[in-house]
Amino acid sequence: MVGKLRLGFCLLTLLGFFLLGSASFLQGEEGMYPISGIGQLDLKARGLELSAKEIFNTEETCLVDGICRVNGCTGSFVSDQGLIITNHHCAYRAIQSASSTDHDYLADGFQADSFEQEIPAKGYTVRITEDYRDVSAEVLSITEPDMDFTARTRAIERKMKEVEQAAEKEHPGMRAEVAEMFIGKTYMLFLYTYIRDVRLVFAPPASVGNFGGEVDNWEWPRHTGDFSFMRAYVAPDGSTSEYAEENVPYQPKRHLKVAVEGVAEEDFVMLLGYPGRTSRHKTADFLKYERDVRLPGVVQFYQWQLDVMEAAGAGDRAVALKHASRMRSLANVEKRSRGQLKGLRRVNIVESRELEESQLQDYIEADPARRSRYGRLLEDIAQVYAEMATSYPVESLESELFNAPRLMSIAFQVYDAAMERGKPDLERETPYMDRNFDQTRQSLLLTLQDLDIATDKNLLQGICQRLEKLGVANEEAVSFVESDLKLDDFYSSTELTDPDSLQRLLELSAEELQKVQDPALQLVGQWYPRLLEIREADKQREGRLNQLYGELIEVKKEFLKSQFVPDANGTLRLTMGRVEGYSPEDAVYKMPFTSLQGVLDKTTGEEPFQTPASLLEAAAAQEFGNYVHPELQQVPVNMLYSTDTTGGNSGSPILNSRGELVGVNFDRAFEATINDFAWDQSYSRSIGVDIRYVLWITGTVFQSDRLLQELTH
Amino acid sequence: MVGKLRLGFCLLTLLGFFLLGSASFLQGEEGMYPISGIGQLDLKARGLELSAKEIFNTEETCLVDGICRVNGCTGSFVSDQGLIITNHHCAYRAIQSASSTDHDYLADGFQADSFEQEIPAKGYTVRITEDYRDVSAEVLSITEPDMDFTARTRAIERKMKEVEQAAEKEHPGMRAEVAEMFIGKTYMLFLYTYIRDVRLVFAPPASVGNFGGEVDNWEWPRHTGDFSFMRAYVAPDGSTSEYAEENVPYQPKRHLKVAVEGVAEEDFVMLLGYPGRTSRHKTADFLKYERDVRLPGVVQFYQWQLDVMEAAGAGDRAVALKHASRMRSLANVEKRSRGQLKGLRRVNIVESRELEESQLQDYIEADPARRSRYGRLLEDIAQVYAEMATSYPVESLESELFNAPRLMSIAFQVYDAAMERGKPDLERETPYMDRNFDQTRQSLLLTLQDLDIATDKNLLQGICQRLEKLGVANEEAVSFVESDLKLDDFYSSTELTDPDSLQRLLELSAEELQKVQDPALQLVGQWYPRLLEIREADKQREGRLNQLYGELIEVKKEFLKSQFVPDANGTLRLTMGRVEGYSPEDAVYKMPFTSLQGVLDKTTGEEPFQTPASLLEAAAAQEFGNYVHPELQQVPVNMLYSTDTTGGNSGSPILNSRGELVGVNFDRAFEATINDFAWDQSYSRSIGVDIRYVLWITGTVFQSDRLLQELTH
Repeated sequence: MVGKLRLGFCLLTLLGFFLLGSASFLQGEEGMYPISGIGQLDLKARGLELSAKEIFNTEETCLVDGICRVNGCTGSFVSDQGLIITNHHCAYRAIQSASSTDHDYLADGFQADSFEQEIPAKGYTVRITEDYRDVSAEVLSITEPDMDFTARTRAIERKMKEVEQAAEKEHPGMRAEVAEMFIGKTYMLFLYTYIRDVRLVFAPPASVGNFGGEVDNWEWPRHTGDFSFMRAYVAPDGSTSEYAEENVPYQPKRHLKVAVEGVAEEDFVMLLGYPGRTSRHKTADFLKYERDVRLPGVVQFYQWQLDVMEAAGAGDRAVALKHASRMRSLANVEKRSRGQLKGLRRVNIVESRELEESQLQDYIEADPARRSRYGRLLEDIAQVYAEMATSYPVESLESELFNAPRLMSIAFQVYDAAMERGKPDLERETPYMDRNFDQTRQSLLLTLQDLDIATDKNLLQGICQRLEKLGVANEEAVSFVESDLKLDDFYSSTELTDPDSLQRLLELSAEELQKVQDPALQLVGQWYPRLLEIREADKQREGRLNQLYGELIEVKKEFLKSQFVPDANGTLRLTMGRVEGYSPEDAVYKMPFTSLQGVLDKTTGEEPFQTPASLLEAAAAQEFGNYVHPELQQVPVNMLYSTDTTGGNSGSPILNSRGELVGVNFDRAFEATINDFAWDQSYSRSIGVDIRYVLWITGTVFQSDRLLQELTH
Repeated sequence: MVGKLRLGFCLLTLLGFFLLGSASFLQGEEGMYPISGIGQLDLKARGLELSAKEIFNTEETCLVDGICRVNGCTGSFVSDQGLIITNHHCAYRAIQSASSTDHDYLADGFQADSFEQEIPAKGYTVRITEDYRDVSAEVLSITEPDMDFTARTRAIERKMKEVEQAAEKEHPGMRAEVAEMFIGKTYMLFLYTYIRDVRLVFAPPASVGNFGGEVDNWEWPRHTGDFSFMRAYVAPDGSTSEYAEENVPYQPKRHLKVAVEGVAEEDFVMLLGYPGRTSRHKTADFLKYERDVRLPGVVQFYQWQLDVMEAAGAGDRAVALKHASRMRSLANVEKRSRGQLKGLRRVNIVESRELEESQLQDYIEADPARRSRYGRLLEDIAQVYAEMATSYPVESLESELFNAPRLMSIAFQVYDAAMERGKPDLERETPYMDRNFDQTRQSLLLTLQDLDIATDKNLLQGICQRLEKLGVANEEAVSFVESDLKLDDFYSSTELTDPDSLQRLLELSAEELQKVQDPALQLVGQWYPRLLEIREADKQREGRLNQLYGELIEVKKEFLKSQFVPDANGTLRLTMGRVEGYSPEDAVYKMPFTSLQGVLDKTTGEEPFQTPASLLEAAAAQEFGNYVHPELQQVPVNMLYSTDTTGGNSGSPILNSRGELVGVNFDRAFEATINDFAWDQSYSRSIGVDIRYVLWITGTVFQSDRLLQELTH
């Protein structure tokens, strides 16, 4: 049944996504290449010893069969027993859920000595890409030239859902997802298997897996053992299933070979993974909107949230554990946003895009037909961002009112679910479609676990104060600004904080729900019309941008006489580069490997620079086995390389020229936070944990013979 | 008359200060060599093209005649008209004194277009080393084996003053100073000319001269144009004189040639200068006292003072200007102390000294005669530091009570002067001896210029609160803790804040002064017995340490069978090294030159990263003339080299292998703050401004043709 779909590949080949340069590949290059198109590239010239067919082909198992997606991250199968290596920060939620003050796996690490000891990772799924094909023609067939923007967006959305439903009918048990490759232009249908029984196998203590914490996050030199092992389980008959005791390890079609010897400076490396979102094809006006409006807003608002949660968890480990995962995500985005701001404020990024666009505009103006078709294109795009800039302060805060406080986020989703689920399935917002609603329900129940009432009250009150300052009032919300009593009453009389009630409320129809006397649901109800307005405005802008960017790509192709690699969109991509250092600033050069000595140098014994005694002992005993970097004469810890990555590449395998595992990708250097907008050989560097450190930590420091055996037998 | 003194040199040669290694000199090396002994070194092997005689000799003019001391800094003569180059931060006090909100030379820079426009630098002196000889035998002749420690210190101090007086009598117009080379062992008499009419010629704006401010202070990479030009003036007959309109530029015996072409990476460089104090020969117990007691105390107390002054100057440029120079010194010491703390907390510095001492102790124990003479030596030294650790918290705070608040500092010195000047000249504390009292008076009047009453009150009240917490009470002081009214009254009724009254009070005898009804003087009077007690205890400890360290040097020489370079003591020293980068941490390498592009990259337009428009314009216009670094293809800004320097080397000329000026030394890298305790090839790096940047700033950016002409004609 999969054979048919594979016929689609000739189409992909014809699409020819790439700028085909013949220059020799000595350093990294921009390009998150869709896996379908790598046959077009001269891989050998780039240093690869595998053929495109060995990486991906339609007839037999290939390298890509060893790659999976683990929630928002990438993972690799590293044994025939479904063992997956990914980042510690990707498994963080699972480690946190399994932890309590009694057995604090975040602090102490976790190690299963048998299959039985492996802990279910609630809310985790492993997604395996089975096949895909181009469905642009089908999706766009629904649009008409004179459609307004909202209608166009809605039509495309609906058509995408239809295509997905049809594909799922055709391939039972699989999940179909349509991905937009070029906005408003190119759409691809992906078929996935979702494994829903995922378990935690090994996690180093946070003092290894998150060594350096927020201080070192987005920084190089880095010394973080950011890896964990999980395992995919399926029903005894091989079908996917929720967690069940009788489930058995999943046998992947292929797993990656571990290259114990690692790589050296200047060596070729490549990454396979699921990068989330990039904005390489957006205009200078978009960059200015990000620089002047959205990013400063995010930095300011996230920093405040972090301060509130930090203060709440300061004296109470139980509260701190509740906040751990959320704070980490917030801090991560906050610092990345700061890095992006710093990058965007370097004039040359925005200016060079402005220059490109002024050249494009000249090209457009030079021909009357082009002028009449594309003459106002850039201006129209600018207009959308101008509107977004105006509405951002209020709209973002109103959205956060129903997002940042856990209670309000839950209340909103319960209310929204009831309203949406009254509509036909295909017309609903994605999370409330029948095929997704189980997942939505589960993640709502997980959200409840993070709820600390005192923190939540502070967040709610703080947002209401901000809204009041902006002149946005609502009787209920305004009452929280002054009155703690009102706020206490609000939280003590809601039912939503109780898991059973929450489950029950999630089953109610819109009509039933509106009769429920719950203050949180009532507040949502009052605000709901306004929230729908915001949602509608978003869709309208998205629709306009979709159409406009479709045209922009069209005229840009014509102008540049070339094709481009599409922006990242969560689909499988290949990126290639070299192990290499870089110069982040005048007179500073950063080398591409860090070493165990660096861990010892950074260790202060205080958060986030603690180091487990077992590691210090193994280091002192010089038990380095095969894990020594020949030039450093030390165990290498992290490595730096010039691939093209973004969020979603967390956990991506770092592969050598033979496609063997030499490390696990987990971060970018601070200067490379700007990758999302512009990649550059001089500063775009990704950071991974060296496979030698992974093996030394698991095998030597934590003596997990079982794991070492499974990895290297 | 100078001839006689020069006979002393053979003595110096015999002293043989140095560890004479024959290893080839490829990198920097520890060693602030006293200028008298460089004849002993194989300078050619180290890369120098000059002979020791060309650097210093007794018969004709030599390189050293081009070096001078400018207050606490080093300077170089760079024209036959007495033009001196030193650091911007060395001229800072002069620039600040000449500045007001009307003509803000700190902010805007200063440039004299003629001799007439040069501004007298009040409180500045230029000191030229004329000659010196060993006077150890003479000084130590006064000591007797059974003298107690205080008596020994007093006797040595007195003898030093006698030797100085005799030398000044013999050499009228010169100033004689005895310097201790090895504590309790070796003393040298230096003869100096002091030029007292010093004028400001050129200072770049602080946005160049102090670019990066406290953020970049002690840091590399650095982009600071830390240089200024001053000029020495003498009476028309060539004698030294206070400022007088008819004075003429001083003609130095020799001035340095400016090497416009600069130096390259790996080139030999040497510095001549007046390094202040190092502690290389002190024990591990001293290091621990610094690490655990004194440095943390300094960091904490200085940070607090800075906070108080910062807050006071925040909204008021006039107040900020009053505090500028003082805050800069405090911040400098505070950050250096933090750097030293960080360095000392690296276990290996203290531990390696402990190891050396335990080996020395073994050597001592191995022989009964040695044991009986030196057996308790290290223990006795430890005992002194233990006492100092105990007394530090209270004594340091009591001393600061009469130092940090300007009023109290003035009151104390007026009172102390009256008490001391009642004694015979040779028995007085140094500042109150007849030969020094003019200088003391002048600097007291300058102190008054810095006084901001509101800040001073906060400082006084804060210290009184701290004293109260430590249980140190005094009726007057305790009253300030609670009562602002009392404090206001105190400040409004003192006469000391008036310059004329201060002058008058400074002339009173102890008896007359005690009748004066001034609350500040009365507070000093109440505390004075206690302050004398502290002074006495200090002298007693100093005396004990002098004797003990004398013995330690003796037995160490015997044990190591070698000589050492004496600790820095403000006398003229030579240090040699290479232009070279370093690795401050795992995976980071810092290169030895920064460039103009780095200035532009750092420029944010906000303090301390503002850059004058004229510089930005010259950079944009690419007006680089001869000042381009051939490899960088840019104007180099700062440079890094492996010489052995400390405070007092500020302003030292950086000289190439032919003794030509290639830059001006102004700082050390953060890791090298620990230089004062231990020098190391791997991290000890000094920072200087490249001569090409000096010339580009003065000639191209600020178009001072006059200066450029004088420097390079």
